[in-house]
Amino acid sequence: MPDFEQQRHQAHRIPDQDHELIVACVQMRSNVNISGIARTASASGVKRLILTGQAKLISKIARDGAEELDVSIHRTLVPVLQRLKQEGYRLVGLEQTTNSQDLNSYRFSNRSVLVVGNERLGLSEEVLNELDDVIEIPVYGLPYSFNASSATAMALYEYRRQIAMGE
Amino acid sequence: MPDFEQQRHQAHRIPDQDHELIVACVQMRSNVNISGIARTASASGVKRLILTGQAKLISKIARDGAEELDVSIHRTLVPVLQRLKQEGYRLVGLEQTTNSQDLNSYRFSNRSVLVVGNERLGLSEEVLNELDDVIEIPVYGLPYSFNASSATAMALYEYRRQIAMGE
Repeated sequence: MPDFEQQRHQAHRIPDQDHELIVACVQMRSNVNISGIARTASASGVKRLILTGQAKLISKIARDGAEELDVSIHRTLVPVLQRLKQEGYRLVGLEQTTNSQDLNSYRFSNRSVLVVGNERLGLSEEVLNELDDVIEIPVYGLPYSFNASSATAMALYEYRRQIAMGE
Repeated sequence: MPDFEQQRHQAHRIPDQDHELIVACVQMRSNVNISGIARTASASGVKRLILTGQAKLISKIARDGAEELDVSIHRTLVPVLQRLKQEGYRLVGLEQTTNSQDLNSYRFSNRSVLVVGNERLGLSEEVLNELDDVIEIPVYGLPYSFNASSATAMALYEYRRQIAMGE
């Protein structure tokens, strides 16, 4: 018998009910990236996705994320972030900034909002001013940055890893 | 002074010389995915990318990865994997299979090859038979799977995280 046999799309783990992570994207350039983020978020147990501007999910890419996620689209993000902060969420930006914390050692709070920046412009000063924390993914080679969708995948992986490992 | 100011594409960490990870992709459907993997791999300090079939990097997506990586394209992957195994690399597939290990707890060997499967078909039996280990990323919601490029980003993040944290 072979050691490894395919077992795709198998029963998933149940997300921990004590933890909630919302993903919020500023106005992005590409609906492909937004849709990629939606798929990854849904498969990572995220329940709520906040989008800004002319955003539209491409269901071929977002897959079940397009139906499973509670998606809301807003004209501007700052008032939404302010409201979530008042509701007790910790606002965590994903960006290379001064005073950012390394994703490897950052510990997510139980109720957090992961704020994802534009592919080219990142997070604006206006959005940065609202954040509690900024996390940054260490880079080891050119182009010294990750694509927005890949960076979000890494952050969502780390979020779930910490919970699963009880860290 | 604001807490967080953008500092994009800043000086990177130097990859640890004792560790080497090669990324090898079976024949993929999409050059967009291959190119996304190339960008993420290069920014994660990977030096060598092995591709199969009609693969072509799109430099707009792969960015510096297209020039920085040592890229080789092969007609079939199995002989290449066999050679790398003889050279002492541990072959690690990224797939949902029987006997797969959880990426959260898997520990990468110093010299490894991460073998990435086709978007639709994953890793074939022929390739699975050559592997030392298979790692699987826990899923917490529909569609119970990650896009090939996002899954690779998560695996590369975990690989670098372990080295950085001395685990």
